[in-house]
Amino acid sequence: MTILSYQGDATLADLLHADGIDRSVVAIRDLIAGVNAAPDGELPDAWLDLVSARRSDATSEQLTALRATIGRPADPARGDHAARLANLRAELKCRGLDGFVVPRADEYQGEYVPLRGSRLAWISGFTGSAGAVVVLLDKAAIFIDGRYTIQARQEVSGALFSYHHLIEEFHGDWAALNLPAGAKLGFDPRMHTAAWADKMRASLSPAGVELVATNGSPVDAVWTDQPPAPLGVVNIQPLSAAGRSASDKRADIGDALARLKADVAVLTQPDSIAWLLNVRGADVPCTPLPLSFATIRADGNVDWFVDRRKLAPGLEEHLGNQVSIRSPDELAGALDRLGVDGAKVRLDGGTAALWVVERLASAGARLDQGGDPCVLPKAVKNQTEIEGARAAHRRDGAALVRFLCWFDAEAPKGEMDELTVVEKLHKARQGAADFRGPSFETISGAGPNGAIVHYRATPATNRRIENNSVFLLDSGGQYLDGTTDITRTLAVGDVGPQARRHFTLVLKGHIALNRARFPAGTAGSQLDTLARQFLWQQGLDYDHGTGHGIGSYLSVHEGPQKFTKEPSLTALQPGMILSNEPGYYAPGSHGIRIENLELVVSVNIAGAEQPMLGFETLSLCPIDHRMIDPNLLTGEEQDWLNAYHARVRSELTPLLGGEDSAWLERATAEL
Amino acid sequence: MTILSYQGDATLADLLHADGIDRSVVAIRDLIAGVNAAPDGELPDAWLDLVSARRSDATSEQLTALRATIGRPADPARGDHAARLANLRAELKCRGLDGFVVPRADEYQGEYVPLRGSRLAWISGFTGSAGAVVVLLDKAAIFIDGRYTIQARQEVSGALFSYHHLIEEFHGDWAALNLPAGAKLGFDPRMHTAAWADKMRASLSPAGVELVATNGSPVDAVWTDQPPAPLGVVNIQPLSAAGRSASDKRADIGDALARLKADVAVLTQPDSIAWLLNVRGADVPCTPLPLSFATIRADGNVDWFVDRRKLAPGLEEHLGNQVSIRSPDELAGALDRLGVDGAKVRLDGGTAALWVVERLASAGARLDQGGDPCVLPKAVKNQTEIEGARAAHRRDGAALVRFLCWFDAEAPKGEMDELTVVEKLHKARQGAADFRGPSFETISGAGPNGAIVHYRATPATNRRIENNSVFLLDSGGQYLDGTTDITRTLAVGDVGPQARRHFTLVLKGHIALNRARFPAGTAGSQLDTLARQFLWQQGLDYDHGTGHGIGSYLSVHEGPQKFTKEPSLTALQPGMILSNEPGYYAPGSHGIRIENLELVVSVNIAGAEQPMLGFETLSLCPIDHRMIDPNLLTGEEQDWLNAYHARVRSELTPLLGGEDSAWLERATAEL
Repeated sequence: MTILSYQGDATLADLLHADGIDRSVVAIRDLIAGVNAAPDGELPDAWLDLVSARRSDATSEQLTALRATIGRPADPARGDHAARLANLRAELKCRGLDGFVVPRADEYQGEYVPLRGSRLAWISGFTGSAGAVVVLLDKAAIFIDGRYTIQARQEVSGALFSYHHLIEEFHGDWAALNLPAGAKLGFDPRMHTAAWADKMRASLSPAGVELVATNGSPVDAVWTDQPPAPLGVVNIQPLSAAGRSASDKRADIGDALARLKADVAVLTQPDSIAWLLNVRGADVPCTPLPLSFATIRADGNVDWFVDRRKLAPGLEEHLGNQVSIRSPDELAGALDRLGVDGAKVRLDGGTAALWVVERLASAGARLDQGGDPCVLPKAVKNQTEIEGARAAHRRDGAALVRFLCWFDAEAPKGEMDELTVVEKLHKARQGAADFRGPSFETISGAGPNGAIVHYRATPATNRRIENNSVFLLDSGGQYLDGTTDITRTLAVGDVGPQARRHFTLVLKGHIALNRARFPAGTAGSQLDTLARQFLWQQGLDYDHGTGHGIGSYLSVHEGPQKFTKEPSLTALQPGMILSNEPGYYAPGSHGIRIENLELVVSVNIAGAEQPMLGFETLSLCPIDHRMIDPNLLTGEEQDWLNAYHARVRSELTPLLGGEDSAWLERATAEL
Repeated sequence: MTILSYQGDATLADLLHADGIDRSVVAIRDLIAGVNAAPDGELPDAWLDLVSARRSDATSEQLTALRATIGRPADPARGDHAARLANLRAELKCRGLDGFVVPRADEYQGEYVPLRGSRLAWISGFTGSAGAVVVLLDKAAIFIDGRYTIQARQEVSGALFSYHHLIEEFHGDWAALNLPAGAKLGFDPRMHTAAWADKMRASLSPAGVELVATNGSPVDAVWTDQPPAPLGVVNIQPLSAAGRSASDKRADIGDALARLKADVAVLTQPDSIAWLLNVRGADVPCTPLPLSFATIRADGNVDWFVDRRKLAPGLEEHLGNQVSIRSPDELAGALDRLGVDGAKVRLDGGTAALWVVERLASAGARLDQGGDPCVLPKAVKNQTEIEGARAAHRRDGAALVRFLCWFDAEAPKGEMDELTVVEKLHKARQGAADFRGPSFETISGAGPNGAIVHYRATPATNRRIENNSVFLLDSGGQYLDGTTDITRTLAVGDVGPQARRHFTLVLKGHIALNRARFPAGTAGSQLDTLARQFLWQQGLDYDHGTGHGIGSYLSVHEGPQKFTKEPSLTALQPGMILSNEPGYYAPGSHGIRIENLELVVSVNIAGAEQPMLGFETLSLCPIDHRMIDPNLLTGEEQDWLNAYHARVRSELTPLLGGEDSAWLERATAEL
């Protein structure tokens, strides 16, 4: 629609009145502020439904025009950090504190934080996905891990902050060294877990420093233009995609709580709530979840603490009268009530904010911190979710093939750069049905940038893709019926024998893991070595896990299943989905990773003496022949590759046009 | 020497006097009672040194003659169990108890218990290596695991005891069901760990049953002819075998305690003490350790609570004046003293008897239950121990080859039985230098008996070895310079294609584990799957770990390193020795296991990017070609087998005579 100019509040009020919409313009301005504090999605006009589903075209036009007059929140990372620090220090002195810890996490302890929760970026300028800042009255320190060493120096002023290694130097130890005995270090218990506070106290106590919980974040007190909480539209995840009704899920979880002899669970992980209620949201980038808390009782009744304004029309009816929508402000009182009732409360002590745990405990609740009861049933996909994942992967695969066909023609010209690839790939996915955006920020790494494991291209680092080089592309999509995550390492021209050798060792590991069969009861960590063994034989390895769980149109990183060196106690079960992504990184030269998603399935083996499991590959996209040294593959491995490619060809060809289809034919030819 | 008749106490007293030995005959009779309560070893006259190293031949003769007049203790397992139960119940009533738990363990929580500690066998008749009995006033129950179902029914009266599964039914739950509220169930806290007592209380409390610690075992009170504590001779483990002096080890452990900020460690594991002090004993079968406790302070000073009478002449001088020999009776007072001093005390809470932990805690000691500081340095063998292990394995391999040469000629006749094999193999090892006995009871399993994982042949189960059958032989030796443990599965005639297929799948796993290379920091559990993967591909598996650690002329099962499905947090380090023993068991038909000991070594790999480790095989003995289906082996696996056999041939041939050497030549021919 053409953007008309805004005609003024009086005109809008009249239009609303004419449509029978009982909302004031002031309330709508507030709503838009929240909408603007959520990320842009693939459906930028969806928010209009939050005003009313029954609105005239003229009203829609004026609402859109109004939104255009209201600015998006400023980037929290940009601004005068010296002034911000000064303001924060003044606030700390007012509160009698000698310092304060600003973590990356917000109240929801998730992978992504909304603009409002970007306190670490606001105080320091640092935009990475992990880190912490400690602000003392006379100095401040930022703690970042190896991935962010360079980025932190670019984003964070060395005059204001000293730089420290997040893993090697615990920020509690630094605070203990830099504060005098008797000092008080503040922290907001809504932003930290109990385990963090325990570790912090262990560092501070010997130095006589006290860790003091604040009532609200002092950052919020001085962040005058802090964006409001995001109001991403919350929609129904239809039964055709969810596969099990929210009422059935609530009954299941209620039964599970009864078996655990718990009265109620407090759900502190928004993706658990999204799964439980069959809803999806848009509050943070890449993950379609509504930020919220909930409680569920053993009878299946849910109190959902969420801003009602962001619920799409019809959502409350979908949820039914066993789900009570309550304001986020009511959570504290509800926790107190559980304590007064002496309820036995289940929660995940590992991820819940300390504030939740302490509030419950001090109110008198009996705590069972053994875990979130939704996590395992969410991880084990039902038949509908599995079918959805297969369908989403076909569409995602076809989009990738369209992109790769273009890439193969253009890349050797040496004129393309990493950011162009990100954009082009996104456009290819936008052509797929039910695409709702990337499932994470695409990793587009040319040559040496591919060797940086968590590389994200920025205008500052953006690298041209040269001929005769290796290109690493790790990306994924959110689709209504499933979440994808796939990495391909591409040859641009001739990559040389060394890169082919590295790639082939990685491929052998990828194949070995995919071909594994294993008894029910086996944990992912028992299979991790299968993917590493060939690199290990050459004295090589990769410094990340071999695979993570993945959600169903939810988080791209989802527990509890995983392939890691570290022990995992969760047995793999049919219906779980994990990534299979061994890699190898040659610093300064190239990075290699081969990633498919694998569905855990039962396998029938003649003569098997117990139930055996294996993997069905979901991801459908050619593995670049030109990266392979066929001499390093066994006959069985070559057969595996040919069979996989035959399947990719047969499943994707029907979705592709002539040129793309011909490219796929070539890319999946027998080795 | 010919055994002369005993000439009487007066004659012996005169002889002792003449030799200048200041010991009474009464004391010597007591000493012999203790000697007789220890197992027979390969050196039955070694005890004479405990009287004096400077004795005349005549004295030796009379001492030997005296010993012959003094009976060995009766087998604790045999006797009138009904009467024993009645006496125990009377004792329990006297003490106001409604029941008592008799565990398999003694005070030292080890794999083997001496005759005096065989309380479980005495009360029930059960001689297996794991189990528990609960005696109530009106009924009694025995708990055994799957290995011992048949044996328990043979040994234990069903009229006196009900049979229960040790793993599936916790004996605390049974006691809770069978005791009324208010009842008191006794246990001796010297025989149980804290973890056991916690679990027990969790079972008993809901039923209102109290777990009551007894002062001394009520079993001991009614076991009128209970053997004395064993007095197996304690000898010096020479530096030429130990590789590091006891004083250096004490200094190392003292430093480790200082780093842990501990004042003292209480060592409750006799093998740790044997390692620390460079001593070896003879109190229990198969493991050369003196039963004892010790404490070591951060300054390296040791108090060793051991019966001084069993120390060989010169041992106290060897230990030096930083090691104080103290009576076992003094331990309680010493623990109290640590408490009074407010010492920070390190111990292994997982294996220490509850009595030790509670005594320390109630006396005021500050406990750090994080582990025994000797365990890791004991597991990492030094260069001398490694050379010793290699040498011991050569002699053990030669002994095995001599046995196998004989077995191959005799077995197909179909006249040999399992017990004959045990005896013949023992004789073959007795021909090896510095052999000190088996490192565990040999598993000699013909046909279907081989499929019983922990099978031990007895006269009742002894099976004839038929032609065209599979024979499983798992055995090991204690040598002054090392401990061995090896399993070979042997073809007697033609074993058929199915057994060959099973064997070859197991062999592929054995080879894959042996060939593994892995980065420093890798735990054994990360490698376990390598040994199972080929069986898993066929839907098969084995229900035991893939490998355990092993001592240096010490315990055949030694932690902390292991290859298991269950996570292990201990990284493998160069110098550790583990068994590599995958298997497969076809019930009613045959059992297969292939076991070599593997030394963890650093490996140099061209182009390696980090320190890499691998395995050097210590065990030297042919793998039976006739069990192999060569079609299932890859070229690399065949190369591995041929290379191993070439090494076996080259290392053992110099130790073998003509016929054995010719047999070895054939047995190690290229595949």
